[in-house]
Amino acid sequence: MNILEVKIFKYMITQFNTVPTAADLKTVHQVIAPYIIRTAVLSHPYINSICGAEVFFKCENFQNIGAFKMRGATAAALSLSTEELKNGLTTHSSGNHAQAVAKIAQRLGVPAYIVMPDNAPQSKRNGTLSYGAKIIDCKATTADREATLENVVRKTGAYFIHPYNDYNVIAGQATAAMELLEQVEYLDVVMAPVGGGGLMSGTSLACKYFSPGVQIIGTEPKEADDAFQSLKAGHIIENKTTNTIADGLRTTIREKTFSILRENLHDLITVSEEEIIEALRMIWTIQKIVIEPSCAVPFAALLQQREIFKNKRVGIIITGGNVDFDKLPF
Amino acid sequence: MNILEVKIFKYMITQFNTVPTAADLKTVHQVIAPYIIRTAVLSHPYINSICGAEVFFKCENFQNIGAFKMRGATAAALSLSTEELKNGLTTHSSGNHAQAVAKIAQRLGVPAYIVMPDNAPQSKRNGTLSYGAKIIDCKATTADREATLENVVRKTGAYFIHPYNDYNVIAGQATAAMELLEQVEYLDVVMAPVGGGGLMSGTSLACKYFSPGVQIIGTEPKEADDAFQSLKAGHIIENKTTNTIADGLRTTIREKTFSILRENLHDLITVSEEEIIEALRMIWTIQKIVIEPSCAVPFAALLQQREIFKNKRVGIIITGGNVDFDKLPF
Repeated sequence: MNILEVKIFKYMITQFNTVPTAADLKTVHQVIAPYIIRTAVLSHPYINSICGAEVFFKCENFQNIGAFKMRGATAAALSLSTEELKNGLTTHSSGNHAQAVAKIAQRLGVPAYIVMPDNAPQSKRNGTLSYGAKIIDCKATTADREATLENVVRKTGAYFIHPYNDYNVIAGQATAAMELLEQVEYLDVVMAPVGGGGLMSGTSLACKYFSPGVQIIGTEPKEADDAFQSLKAGHIIENKTTNTIADGLRTTIREKTFSILRENLHDLITVSEEEIIEALRMIWTIQKIVIEPSCAVPFAALLQQREIFKNKRVGIIITGGNVDFDKLPF
Repeated sequence: MNILEVKIFKYMITQFNTVPTAADLKTVHQVIAPYIIRTAVLSHPYINSICGAEVFFKCENFQNIGAFKMRGATAAALSLSTEELKNGLTTHSSGNHAQAVAKIAQRLGVPAYIVMPDNAPQSKRNGTLSYGAKIIDCKATTADREATLENVVRKTGAYFIHPYNDYNVIAGQATAAMELLEQVEYLDVVMAPVGGGGLMSGTSLACKYFSPGVQIIGTEPKEADDAFQSLKAGHIIENKTTNTIADGLRTTIREKTFSILRENLHDLITVSEEEIIEALRMIWTIQKIVIEPSCAVPFAALLQQREIFKNKRVGIIITGGNVDFDKLPF
């Protein structure tokens, strides 16, 4: 991959100024395909018997950089002009989007500057550094994140790829659900967690366009339930707390994701920290995959609402697997 | 599943008194198929780039009871007559074969009596109990294992399924490699770890029968290298130490497995404890799957002998994923 190739790509993925269409999603999937892994879908009879449902895990923990974020960052970076790319890329992220931007910048041969809160997991810090990015520390508040980022942009001229409030990023994240719908027939429900809402927005668009009968359900920790509160109120409400083990879901939805979720989500279920930890433990011990606490949130919701999902075919996007092994809650 | 069904099965799988043939393996695979999972094969571009080879993990950690042992125990149990089954099943095992025998006994509706060394991992103990088996403790020596087992057989009349020195068990274990050869084309090498040698024996037969050009390589911890020493000496030599983190590989090969390995193995590579731990850490952190230390032994051998495997397509049987999370070496 080099700048010349990017020149070709930029005619394929444009910078979307409105909600991406079905055709946009297809183009994005085609263009980013060489840079992402078509991840496996797993299921386990014991998990199915516990749930009384058929559960299909779309394993984005097997994705490049260990999380679905590779899809969105790539879809955004490949829409940029040589001029926009030349000073590198920047973003703020507690971890997986950071690694994704670092990785695609490395492939494009441009620098990456990542603003990271001081409570980001060590494994995600190490990953970001391993792709050659420069980390700029900030406090774990929205205000300090944004101020630090503005400063980086001013100093370096790097192009800012927002972690989720960006239609190209949303289109990239949609490709995980697009693949899931191709890999598993006759799904009744697709679930994903909601942090900033990028994945959930993309997932909801993919389901609406390519499998209109599917029920689209978002899930959130009760300890970071900004999307739940916002959808109820009809306008964006910030998180009151972010005291959740699901470190990927502490961010707040923004206008683009809020608007897509408001239009397309059929339900949003919130779960307690105990439920997240129990679901996390079950996926590790039965399905035998390494996943982040954030991934366990949809499965926790399924366990909590077993009656609703009885005998259904439920697809769950497993978002990532970048964990600090010495900080497991079990 | 009930005794009536078993009556039908017993005409399909006989008790093999000689090395199973290609036709035997096919029959076994067909008969046990409803009781096992056709596990996924995973690979990861970052692992491939580190190795300079294409590596395909056959994920038996996703198997029922979390390990390939389900295959062999099922192949053995389904060869028994109602008379042989009526007093239940027994075995000695440090963990995965224990769980497999417990699970198939539970499905057949007969009791299971499991002789288990006192140093078996807690997760494997819990698994065995969860399938309704009775655990009888013994010391972690071959002599005490065997004496305790004899006592159980005398008292209960239960049928003893040996963990590996049994042609039906070997035929069952062969089915993992049979699937791998179907799932991945043009493999150059297939590797597995050697404990008692049941999996490696089955794997070598499957490769010989169904993909004759494939190189068959066994792997062992240096700290439990009985197969390596035995093959060199031309007769069975007991382990001098079993001081390895690979708890599934502390057993010693026996005449049936020794004879098959001597005939079919192309090479046997031994690895240090440090190499096992490094390989284990890499599979957890990059491929994002939960695996036992024993599984990391073939991958450690590949990393150690990178030059030999350069540009080859290497299949590795990931044997199981039953670990105590609080005892990880990283």
